[in-house]
Amino acid sequence: MSSSTAHIGITGLAVMGSNLARNFARNGFTVAVHNRTAAKTRALVAEFGHEGAFVAAESAKEFVDALERPRRIVVMVKAGDPTDAVIREFAPLLDEGDVVIDGGNAHFQDTRRRERELRERGIHFVGVGISGGEEGALLGPSIMPGGSPESYASLGPLLEKIAAKAADGTPCTSHMGPDGAGHFVKMVHNGIEYADMQLIAEAYHLLREVAGYSPARIAETFRAWNRGRLDSYLIEITAEVLAHTDAATGRPFVDVVADAAEQKGTGRWTVQIALDLGVPVSGIAEAVFARSVSGHAELRAAARGLAGPTAEALSREAADAFAARVEQALYASKIVSYTQGFHQIRAGSEEYGWGVDLGAVASLWRGGCIIRAAFLDRIRVAYDARPALASLLADPGFAAEIGAAQQDWRTVVAAAVGHGIPVPAFSASLAYYDALRAERLPAALTQGQRDFFGAHTYRRSDREGSFHTLWSGDRSEVRTD
Amino acid sequence: MSSSTAHIGITGLAVMGSNLARNFARNGFTVAVHNRTAAKTRALVAEFGHEGAFVAAESAKEFVDALERPRRIVVMVKAGDPTDAVIREFAPLLDEGDVVIDGGNAHFQDTRRRERELRERGIHFVGVGISGGEEGALLGPSIMPGGSPESYASLGPLLEKIAAKAADGTPCTSHMGPDGAGHFVKMVHNGIEYADMQLIAEAYHLLREVAGYSPARIAETFRAWNRGRLDSYLIEITAEVLAHTDAATGRPFVDVVADAAEQKGTGRWTVQIALDLGVPVSGIAEAVFARSVSGHAELRAAARGLAGPTAEALSREAADAFAARVEQALYASKIVSYTQGFHQIRAGSEEYGWGVDLGAVASLWRGGCIIRAAFLDRIRVAYDARPALASLLADPGFAAEIGAAQQDWRTVVAAAVGHGIPVPAFSASLAYYDALRAERLPAALTQGQRDFFGAHTYRRSDREGSFHTLWSGDRSEVRTD
Repeated sequence: MSSSTAHIGITGLAVMGSNLARNFARNGFTVAVHNRTAAKTRALVAEFGHEGAFVAAESAKEFVDALERPRRIVVMVKAGDPTDAVIREFAPLLDEGDVVIDGGNAHFQDTRRRERELRERGIHFVGVGISGGEEGALLGPSIMPGGSPESYASLGPLLEKIAAKAADGTPCTSHMGPDGAGHFVKMVHNGIEYADMQLIAEAYHLLREVAGYSPARIAETFRAWNRGRLDSYLIEITAEVLAHTDAATGRPFVDVVADAAEQKGTGRWTVQIALDLGVPVSGIAEAVFARSVSGHAELRAAARGLAGPTAEALSREAADAFAARVEQALYASKIVSYTQGFHQIRAGSEEYGWGVDLGAVASLWRGGCIIRAAFLDRIRVAYDARPALASLLADPGFAAEIGAAQQDWRTVVAAAVGHGIPVPAFSASLAYYDALRAERLPAALTQGQRDFFGAHTYRRSDREGSFHTLWSGDRSEVRTD
Repeated sequence: MSSSTAHIGITGLAVMGSNLARNFARNGFTVAVHNRTAAKTRALVAEFGHEGAFVAAESAKEFVDALERPRRIVVMVKAGDPTDAVIREFAPLLDEGDVVIDGGNAHFQDTRRRERELRERGIHFVGVGISGGEEGALLGPSIMPGGSPESYASLGPLLEKIAAKAADGTPCTSHMGPDGAGHFVKMVHNGIEYADMQLIAEAYHLLREVAGYSPARIAETFRAWNRGRLDSYLIEITAEVLAHTDAATGRPFVDVVADAAEQKGTGRWTVQIALDLGVPVSGIAEAVFARSVSGHAELRAAARGLAGPTAEALSREAADAFAARVEQALYASKIVSYTQGFHQIRAGSEEYGWGVDLGAVASLWRGGCIIRAAFLDRIRVAYDARPALASLLADPGFAAEIGAAQQDWRTVVAAAVGHGIPVPAFSASLAYYDALRAERLPAALTQGQRDFFGAHTYRRSDREGSFHTLWSGDRSEVRTD
């Protein structure tokens, strides 16, 4: 391999980095590969060299020299300090116009900082969200790049080649917007993934405890749902997990797994940032909380004897009718989760001036990523038709569907409450729906209380201005603006 | 007034600072007062000089010279940069052993930083949470001081004098723990305040829309509740607000106030920090979200036509029975909010090594602050009896009460869902209760999914270790630890 001919370079060859390098190579690109310990680089080329054109670089210098100009360097190391360390190492070796790509799970504020710092040196920094796990990285992930338009002009064609393709052939990547836009969109993707998983968990719990279904029967139910409007990767693998039998015990796999869910932090970030932006993401928040509740063994042990209702599982016929209602509740709650998630992306885009195209986001989530689903094509269509849509619930199609589902949704939540089955995400989603459509909210009382104890003032619904009532005086009203 | 005789100094004489200065003076302390613009200092002494002994200081130098050693200086300026600016101004004028007190609503991490910085210069920095609003500052607030034990030895006796007193005469202040402990406890106080207010708003909404009560009737209902176990400042003022008639229109006040609730940020902080600590605070989160939903006029307008249920208000007799159930639901949900809030304080105390005494927290919230309530004495008793209580729900008394309430709680949430009334905090609290007492949670399915798509591994409930199933292989299980 002659020098300066590699189209792209990858540094950091753990599984994600290796698989991404192989994906580029398998798509006809010459890929320079580099790792802190050179043994990994050699091993990659030895094992997968036949898949395409690799240039194994032992040193950072060798690595940057192997790349055509302007260079494209993908950093695939742990988010946080390791990313900064690699940037510090490479930046002095780069030339103006080169593109450094961070493919890790960085916090978008770190990406904004890094982009600003490198921009001052004439280097493009591109924070890229990559979803699809190890398999996606190899076979086609969903890719969410931020950064300057110039950087996308240089990088985009390569990403479009290695990305997953939606059913209509569209690559599952496009330019999300400047600086942190890509990592922000990826973060919300993960938040929605939390909500999707929690909604599925609640549906499973209801089918198990209220309908009295076995895990195998529930697997069948999910398989049937997967042929309808809920068609998605997560529903598909749920059926696989539920159908699986534990070899050691002969019991359903789901019954031998410890019921304490873990998390790696992007769901938490999503909620924390939504709070900063003033966006209600109750479905995602409840999903994050549900995982932490499950892990608090001490609290659960202390609560084990608390009183619950005495409700019996349904009859066979009633159970099947109930299962159909659970599908409606799951679908309606899912619409709310996505409504909240897209609201957050819109708010982030407005806050940071990114100009994110929500239809494009929905489009690229159609393939490759964990939340890929037929449903996303519907969202794409909704935003493509009306890019300024205030909320997914304002789309006539979704409004009609959720309207048709709402009665069953209520029945299911009421049944869960009656049977003592926790459905925090189902009920938070329904409460969001009912709050948004309410003519009047009791927030008026809240404002009255705030004015009473803190003189925080209030607005009136019948005229402009800001007012305060002299609560500890004669209770007359004064204008405060 | 001779120099160097003031017991305490207050700099920053906006309403909170002035009222606090007056409170000290009215309790027999000599108070040095100082403000960036001296006119305010002069005005305070002119208007309230008869209330006690004030030393008006025009300059920072004059101010610190007026104080007995070691000095006690209370900074009452806006949280954030203004606080740092004042500290920068005063620190060079102070001596080793002096105590600087920040009485603003600082973020506890800022307090931890400031404490560290001043400690290096031999100065004690005390972050103090003060609740009770303007009136509380004057007549007796609830005071939550952090900082070194030495600083409390110097400052505590003064605070105990000016603080509110609980019904049994105990001052509503005590040493919360080192550095940020005081501001952390105050933050959670405010988070719980958000939850309390949201629960009251939901109860009001249900009485209005499901029971069909008028605001005046609901005011009566709250007054009756205030004579029972819900006896609290917030219930009391709710009745006042609901009984109030708007003079301009002759309509109930609550019907003319715009139904968009505002917030100042401490509720948001509480949730964000709970997420970092892995503590589920779903009741507080839903309260924060409910306020932001109410303020999204554009989303609400877009959702106005969404389908809802058709349910009628109850008959008079059924309404009264329902109202009694709402009291049960409100009380049960309140127990959950406080369970979550105290869990957060315990977790923060463990994370930062504060050793916060939860019984002492409950004790000092009994008077002076916004959430003051008879209920808090019950919490104090519970933690005093068992300081290591894993959760308030593990207290036999609260367990019995919530157990007795749970059936009505379910009926109320189901009725809300059936009537299309959003009760996000009621239902989040109930879901938390049901999740904690569940024998098995569907978190096992979540772990199975995570292992399927991301090889995140899982634990088994029947033996130790970490496991992975070869999902895309022969589905055998491998041990990963």
